[in-house]
Amino acid sequence: MGQVRNILFIMADQLRWDYLGCYGHPSLKTPNIDALADRGVRFTNAYAQSAICGPSRMSFYTGRYVTSHGSTWNQVPLSVGEWTLGDYLRPLGLHVALTGKTHMASDQAGMKRLGLDPNSPDGVLVSQCGFDAQPRDDGLHPDQSVNPDLAYNDYLRRQGYDGDNPWHDWANAAQGPDGEILSGWYMRNAAYPARVKAEDAETPWMTSQAIDYIRRQGESPWCLHLSYIKPHWPYMAPEPYFSMFGTEDVLPANRIDAEKKGPHPVVGAFMKHAEGQNFAREEVRETVIPAYMALIKQLDDEIGRLMGELEAMGRLDDTLIVFTSDHGDYLGDHWLGEKELFHDCSVKLPMIVSHPEGRKGAVDDHPVEAIDLIPTFIDAVGGKVPSHRLEGRSLMPLLKGEAVRDWREMAIAELDYSHRGARLTLGLGVNDCHGWMLRDARWKYIYYQGFRPQLFDLERDPDELHDLADDPGVSDVLAGFKEALFDWLAAGRNVRANLSDEDVEARTDTWQKKGVIFGEW
Amino acid sequence: MGQVRNILFIMADQLRWDYLGCYGHPSLKTPNIDALADRGVRFTNAYAQSAICGPSRMSFYTGRYVTSHGSTWNQVPLSVGEWTLGDYLRPLGLHVALTGKTHMASDQAGMKRLGLDPNSPDGVLVSQCGFDAQPRDDGLHPDQSVNPDLAYNDYLRRQGYDGDNPWHDWANAAQGPDGEILSGWYMRNAAYPARVKAEDAETPWMTSQAIDYIRRQGESPWCLHLSYIKPHWPYMAPEPYFSMFGTEDVLPANRIDAEKKGPHPVVGAFMKHAEGQNFAREEVRETVIPAYMALIKQLDDEIGRLMGELEAMGRLDDTLIVFTSDHGDYLGDHWLGEKELFHDCSVKLPMIVSHPEGRKGAVDDHPVEAIDLIPTFIDAVGGKVPSHRLEGRSLMPLLKGEAVRDWREMAIAELDYSHRGARLTLGLGVNDCHGWMLRDARWKYIYYQGFRPQLFDLERDPDELHDLADDPGVSDVLAGFKEALFDWLAAGRNVRANLSDEDVEARTDTWQKKGVIFGEW
Repeated sequence: MGQVRNILFIMADQLRWDYLGCYGHPSLKTPNIDALADRGVRFTNAYAQSAICGPSRMSFYTGRYVTSHGSTWNQVPLSVGEWTLGDYLRPLGLHVALTGKTHMASDQAGMKRLGLDPNSPDGVLVSQCGFDAQPRDDGLHPDQSVNPDLAYNDYLRRQGYDGDNPWHDWANAAQGPDGEILSGWYMRNAAYPARVKAEDAETPWMTSQAIDYIRRQGESPWCLHLSYIKPHWPYMAPEPYFSMFGTEDVLPANRIDAEKKGPHPVVGAFMKHAEGQNFAREEVRETVIPAYMALIKQLDDEIGRLMGELEAMGRLDDTLIVFTSDHGDYLGDHWLGEKELFHDCSVKLPMIVSHPEGRKGAVDDHPVEAIDLIPTFIDAVGGKVPSHRLEGRSLMPLLKGEAVRDWREMAIAELDYSHRGARLTLGLGVNDCHGWMLRDARWKYIYYQGFRPQLFDLERDPDELHDLADDPGVSDVLAGFKEALFDWLAAGRNVRANLSDEDVEARTDTWQKKGVIFGEW
Repeated sequence: MGQVRNILFIMADQLRWDYLGCYGHPSLKTPNIDALADRGVRFTNAYAQSAICGPSRMSFYTGRYVTSHGSTWNQVPLSVGEWTLGDYLRPLGLHVALTGKTHMASDQAGMKRLGLDPNSPDGVLVSQCGFDAQPRDDGLHPDQSVNPDLAYNDYLRRQGYDGDNPWHDWANAAQGPDGEILSGWYMRNAAYPARVKAEDAETPWMTSQAIDYIRRQGESPWCLHLSYIKPHWPYMAPEPYFSMFGTEDVLPANRIDAEKKGPHPVVGAFMKHAEGQNFAREEVRETVIPAYMALIKQLDDEIGRLMGELEAMGRLDDTLIVFTSDHGDYLGDHWLGEKELFHDCSVKLPMIVSHPEGRKGAVDDHPVEAIDLIPTFIDAVGGKVPSHRLEGRSLMPLLKGEAVRDWREMAIAELDYSHRGARLTLGLGVNDCHGWMLRDARWKYIYYQGFRPQLFDLERDPDELHDLADDPGVSDVLAGFKEALFDWLAAGRNVRANLSDEDVEARTDTWQKKGVIFGEW
């Protein structure tokens, strides 16, 4: 296959893999995203490196596992020394830009240590995870911390939405039955449509920003990370999308009573979180899920508009297009809300990759990971993948449909729940809260520091309702996975990231060439 | 105890822990180093984080395990994002300087990425492992790569030693019986004294540099890393030290024939290296070891001179003094030469710490590690130890003689032998060469990727001659150590290094205070 010129890396936020038509949702029609799947390869075993925004995205943007980049949860600063997507693609001639969310916390102390002015060109890049922000918008703008220069607020003001923080007062608010203003921060208000008009909501605004960027680039190569902030909560959907879905569209929760009785301690502690308690109630699911579906429906329409513009600009023939998410949303499944833990509805990703000359309409069940994208991008534009730093591998052979014999056997995800109330419930220190998931073709194994493991047989129990870890019949399976986790840890995360494997080969036993002689008589 | 003002951090290179009088060497008298031990605490279970210069030193200078800082072998660049000793002590008001060796390879690509000029003040610090070089001298200067501005060569020239590279022609050369010039690169030439005069050898030159620095500092606080390059090979000793030791001073090699029969595969591969083959010969030991002892004897005299100067300047009362090494030297023990592997003669360190108000003449058998020094320094000058980045702990309670109930149970060291011929002998890829040592009060457990473990019972076999790993009676011990290694790896090396534990505590479940509300009905 020839090389592409451009990369369009689209990410939705908190979009469940199974809330798309092409991934089998029975009532949510997403013809535009489905059309993208028809133009490319749809991966059915794609996993986030962590099922929460910050660490998941830092893995997407660094191409490294969470333990390797070290930013284990939201707002944990990414070291100034970590290389990101732009560091790999800029030298290959692409302009690397962002519209929307990264959730990256910059390493202010690290920049200060190196005398790097955060407002200098290099400092701005380091602060924006290596992206040229066009613009950045992480999506949550409480009055206490809203940026007075927030581009979306400027836009809303120009459209006539008033107030100091129109995002909060219009996009994240509804009007109640008696005319009262209701805050999107509270899930009960997802029962009402957002005050903002559909065309002024965040999703179309970001789409327009992306289209403008692509048009401005003309024939100059680019990589654009179009990073939508929806359908992430607050679950506020504008009309007409709001009214498209109702209680009848809410699928039954994937949960059984047995999961609540003697759950794994970590899972049990998460069930006690407010979001777990609330999503356990049908009223919450019936209120929130239609709004969540409405936000996805709007996203799908905007993907359609974007694809139409790309086609009109002639970009479909020279652009690699990825559509994915950073993690899912429990929505009450397994008696949980939000995300973070390792059930598929939380950690599994939709992942569609369309190469102009790649397979069309293909479905691929290889275990793929978020960290595979940077190698894929480098490969697609003709670069060489530096495997000593990047821990994923290019998907290009799978896009071509080549037989790949040595693909990884399992996908691996991690969690650091030190910031969460579950830690306090369990009485743990901040450094005792790490968990890992290993998922191979049949099993999902989960290991939390200090607790018994979990094991699900996804062949017989695809809904992950029956934790088999106490079953004496699976002790060999458990031991095998623990050994696999040991080997993965021992392989040395973060090791030798500044020296290539080829350099090690070339240097092995060769120092005498430089005149340094030792051990010789 | 009160705070100290200054820190004198003395390191010898490749000095075995047991080649000092105070550590029990029967014929090598080191009264000056012994006197330092009488002024402080002598640790009898101190370990390097890796038994080779580069990674060992990067652990000393970063306060982090090798897997955490990622510079796993000599010349593997230390990431520009890694904090070093100076970053911790400069904000506490100390000038942080180096005389001698660091073996640090700078992260040129990382500096370029951040637009950091290597010749700018911050760039120079990053390139010198955070030290102000006064001057740096890594000790090996083959003609092919000698720095034309090498300070020691300038010194030698001023003393009348001629040539383009007087280090090579005088300090690293001998005059043979027929007047021929013999290269110190070859161990057979350790049979002759160095051409340089004793007072112009590297050790006294570096000592003088250190004394000058301390004098220049006056009453201004400082931390000086006086990092000698001897007794590291080339084993060239000047007179009169050269003639102080002879064959009669060479201790019998600590080795038995059984070690050669069916050795552990990694150890066996190291035995095949040139240094292993050569040190297996008595001729080599009888030639090299007297020269090695002579270099240590000169070092001891220079420590005496340095202490005298410190006393004359009144610095003994306000200075914390450390004397240690970066690793040892097999010298033929276990049929091995050089270092890297995990026998005590290679990985165990001499470690003497003298605090003006601490215990005097104390002997301490707690397992301590190289990474404990930075926390000790911070603690000694009254700073707060950032435990999220620094992985060791302050030795101050041990210096005071406090009862410490929760001290670590084992010391941990690592090895990446990917650059060595052993890898080729074993037919391994560059990422399959990691090893670990766990040493508790009784046992030493060693795990190499892809091979059986090793186990020594140091109570019954302090000479480490009998590998018990195949003994069915120790299977529980082996399983326990493997679990301990798993837990250590799982604890998350390099995790959350840019956010303090206190910040995590303060942030746990508190985002609602910032106006971000989720999961609430």
